[in-house]
Formats: sequence, structure tokens, C-alpha cells
Amino acid sequence: MKTLDFFFDFGSPNAYYSWKVLPGILKRTGAEANVIPVLLGGLFKLTGNQPPMVAFSAVKGKLAYEQLESQRFMKKHGIHAFRFNPHFPVNTLLIMSGLIAARRLGIGDAYIEAVLKAMWEDGLKMDDPAIAAGVLSAAGLDAQAILTATQDPAVKAELAANTEAAAARGAFGIPTFFVGEEMFFGKDRLGQVEDELR
Amino acid sequence: MKTLDFFFDFGSPNAYYSWKVLPGILKRTGAEANVIPVLLGGLFKLTGNQPPMVAFSAVKGKLAYEQLESQRFMKKHGIHAFRFNPHFPVNTLLIMSGLIAARRLGIGDAYIEAVLKAMWEDGLKMDDPAIAAGVLSAAGLDAQAILTATQDPAVKAELAANTEAAAARGAFGIPTFFVGEEMFFGKDRLGQVEDELR
Repeated sequence: MKTLDFFFDFGSPNAYYSWKVLPGILKRTGAEANVIPVLLGGLFKLTGNQPPMVAFSAVKGKLAYEQLESQRFMKKHGIHAFRFNPHFPVNTLLIMSGLIAARRLGIGDAYIEAVLKAMWEDGLKMDDPAIAAGVLSAAGLDAQAILTATQDPAVKAELAANTEAAAARGAFGIPTFFVGEEMFFGKDRLGQVEDELR
Repeated sequence: MKTLDFFFDFGSPNAYYSWKVLPGILKRTGAEANVIPVLLGGLFKLTGNQPPMVAFSAVKGKLAYEQLESQRFMKKHGIHAFRFNPHFPVNTLLIMSGLIAARRLGIGDAYIEAVLKAMWEDGLKMDDPAIAAGVLSAAGLDAQAILTATQDPAVKAELAANTEAAAARGAFGIPTFFVGEEMFFGKDRLGQVEDELR
């Protein structure tokens, strides 16, 4: 069975889009996903990269075109609930530490679903611990256990180590995918990812 | 019959790749191409954009990944003769004016083939008029007539007007394609272009 490594941070709308189309790719190819939590802000610092909204803010037409491509992607893949987060950019240290904590509790996938919905459908300010706690509780998850565990130095160390390993492997942004040694950057490469998994 | 507008400058290796796969797209869709000569440097100035090699030079891993995607594209499409031009960036004012001039002489496509080969297979310094003349003559084209016509103010005015029109339509780089009102940027969107032409 082939494995798809998916370097992931909740802060990227493109990670949300990719998560939505992932089940179909896994079903069609029989592959399994290995979602690797990294801190996008840390990856940017390690590689000298910037968010597209910053890097391309002065280029006439570029961000409008990126938005158009996102609209096309959502239309093609039947993604209807997306709403750009009004608090963007949201600092994701808390919710990414929370993902590692939730996995230790065996509830990683439910956590991802709840937090992605809060970030990219409901427009919530998920770097606010009280708001994050409310979202997790509403999803039936143990908010207190998760948020307490985010303070564990081992959790933060794992997130930092994942981020450094991603940069060392060649990643400079999110979402980045690996199939074996083959790297693919961005939601627009998911077709190539699927071809590589076959 | 549908028309594919292709904003084109010889200075972009991605324009070379796109030109190579264009015949297949036109054959499969029954569309016709409208290659529109623009000055990439002018388009960058009008939109505040930069060549990827400049914009991403400080981002660790980004240009290496772009190269990897170019290698994948060439492999997928059977493009074997490409060689990065050692004189890059080549100022394309002369050869883009030459394209407009060659079209007025009814030899536009032969001119494109000859100049793309010189730029992206043979690695020639095509902003040198003597080298350009040699390339055109070797291809059986009337180098003197073409190069003389590049000095016609109407030729330069057409190139400038095309470039301004491209920016006004939303283009910020090369290759940019339009199918009706739908814009697509980059060689990696040619699959979408083909879908749109069907």
C-alpha cells in the first residue's frame, strides 16, 4: 500500500480544499494518508517564504487570479461551505499543537474535521483558547484535555521537529505532498499526486 | 470554432513548453490559436510583477521545485530538446518586434519556430541583432526585411498596445491564455484550457 505524506497546517485555505478532496483520492488509489502537522509560520521562517497574500499583494491581478483558481477548484470538487476566515491570518500554534495532542488522545481525525470547519466554514478566531474550547466541546471532544496537552513541551517539540523536517525535505509551503521521494506543492498538483499513487 | 488567445513572449521558457503542446490541444479540440505578441518585461512593469527567478530567489527550495515541475512537464509531453538559455534573461524587444514584423510578411509561424529553437534549444543570445539575423537566414527567412521592419514605429506601437491590453485584461505573466472571458495562467493550466475548449 502506498502512503501519501501531507504536510498540513489549519492556517492554509489550500490545506482545507485538499483535505476535502483527499478521501476520493485515497478511495480511488487504495493509498493511505499520513497527515503531518507542521507550523506554516515556522516553515516560512525556515525557508524565507511568505504567504501569497503578502508576496503577491503588489502584483496587479495576481491575487484575483488565485481566487479565481480557488473558485474553479471548489466548483470542480463540489466544495460549497468554504468561507474565507475574517480573522485571517490566524496564529495556528494553539490549534496545531492541539492536533498533536488530539492524536495522542486517539481523536485526531475528528479534531481535524472540527477545527477545519471552524476555521474555513464558520469563520471563527481559532487562536483564541476560549473559542477553540467551545468548538471542540461542541464537536463532542474533550476540550480541556486537548488544550491542557498543548502546553506539554513534548507536543511543541514534535511540532517544531516536524516543521524542520519538512523544510529539510524541500517543502516551503502548505499543502505539500510526498509520494515516496516525489514532492508536490499546492492543491493544483493533486491530480499529479493521484497519478503518482496509481 | 473556439479560439484560444495565447499571450506570448519568447523570453519565457514556459511559453516554449506551451508552444510545444499547443498543436495537440488544437487537434483534439478543433480550436484555433491566436498567438498575441506581448513584451513580458513591459507586462511586469505594468503589473508590478517580477520573473520567478527574481521573486523566489530567496525562498529555499522554491526554484528547485519549479525546475522539478518543468522536468515533469517535459517528460510527460515528450519535450526533449530544451536547454536553459545561458544568456538568460535575454531582452526580447528585438525578437518580439520581429514577430510582428514577420507576421506582416506572412511568415509568423516559421519565425516563431526558428526563434524558439534558437532561444530554448540552441542557447543563442537573441538580443544580438547579428545573431538573430544569422538564425533567421539559416531558417530560410528574410532576415534583413524582418530586422528592418522591427524599427517601424507602428510595429513597436502594436507590441506596446498588445502588452497594455494584456494587463488590462488581467494578465500578469507569460504564458497567459484566454478562452472567451476565462483566463488561465501558466503551462500547468493547459489541461484546464483544453477542458474549457471542449
